[in-house]
Amino acid sequence: MFISFEGIDFCGKTTQIELLKRYLESLGRKVFIVREPGGTAISERIREILLNKKHLEMCDETEIFLFTGARAQVVREIIRPLISEGSVVIADRFHDSTTAYQGFGRGLNAGAVNKINEIATGGTIPDITFYIKISVDESAKRKSKCNAELDRIERSHDDFYKRVIGGYEHLALEFPDRIKTINGERTPEEIHLDIVTKLKETMIIGNA
Amino acid sequence: MFISFEGIDFCGKTTQIELLKRYLESLGRKVFIVREPGGTAISERIREILLNKKHLEMCDETEIFLFTGARAQVVREIIRPLISEGSVVIADRFHDSTTAYQGFGRGLNAGAVNKINEIATGGTIPDITFYIKISVDESAKRKSKCNAELDRIERSHDDFYKRVIGGYEHLALEFPDRIKTINGERTPEEIHLDIVTKLKETMIIGNA
Repeated sequence: MFISFEGIDFCGKTTQIELLKRYLESLGRKVFIVREPGGTAISERIREILLNKKHLEMCDETEIFLFTGARAQVVREIIRPLISEGSVVIADRFHDSTTAYQGFGRGLNAGAVNKINEIATGGTIPDITFYIKISVDESAKRKSKCNAELDRIERSHDDFYKRVIGGYEHLALEFPDRIKTINGERTPEEIHLDIVTKLKETMIIGNA
Repeated sequence: MFISFEGIDFCGKTTQIELLKRYLESLGRKVFIVREPGGTAISERIREILLNKKHLEMCDETEIFLFTGARAQVVREIIRPLISEGSVVIADRFHDSTTAYQGFGRGLNAGAVNKINEIATGGTIPDITFYIKISVDESAKRKSKCNAELDRIERSHDDFYKRVIGGYEHLALEFPDRIKTINGERTPEEIHLDIVTKLKETMIIGNA
């Protein structure tokens, strides 16, 4: 079972992934979280380049190649072996992020983005994706409360995030069976319950 | 003017690039050498990941994305500004290396490699390319005499290099106007003379 979480920054993905992991473990499943763009020795090195606050001169094309290069490595070194041994893999962002952020957000050609995603994933895509939807205003509000230093991409402007949200909405319409849109402007418990309900509707999740 | 040099490892590119640089400078041209996959702060960091001898687990897809990510950055940050100010840029490897090494050498899908090259270069490709041709045996002979430690790619086997040579030959047939095949199993001076002759046949190289 392969699950991904998507959404703009500060949508609450990390909390929900942790809650879902604990829930699935309580059902006897082995669960692993993979964090894009890191997760392997090579992809952690790529992550450092991508998120380095000094790298403001990075062009959009380099950004997409680094994200997908890291993903290609994680898919082959981690995700595929885990899935084939029967574990659940939860990805904190996957190929939809590339479409939403680099395609819609940065404006890179959609056909090119799809081709790049195809090569990077080699057909390994999530069975179900939770898109945790919050508004740009809500993201900005949460960002202003956040004491941690922001990385290069988190520093992007509202217009960029609006385009990214447009990208996610486009994807949710294109792949309604796979992508479940979750209202992220509720309590963590309410959101978690919604996610578990949608997961149960879609697949067998016990240790059968 | 944008010139690239291609060929398998130990073909003598570096020597020839230096000789051509000096020759063009003697004609009053400003000449800059760009070295793939490095050349900018970001691409030098990518280069470190690519050539690190510990990264033996790197998958072919990650390798192509890292090479092209580095190239995308060099094209936009260095090559285009230099060309538009009238300088000569000599690239030590460019997009043909991706086709030869990752496409033919590693066996990645040709259509996908072409698409990736298109995105990375954004149409900025060399006016003329010198493919310095040596045999796998000659490369192995020179490699055995080399005292320097070899990087991850230089440690590849003969079969890999044979496929790479096949890739270069395919490209030379496909783009006969741009790619000039140069016999690299001669003295540096003979090779240099051949390169200058072919360059003169193709374009105006003085400070006109």
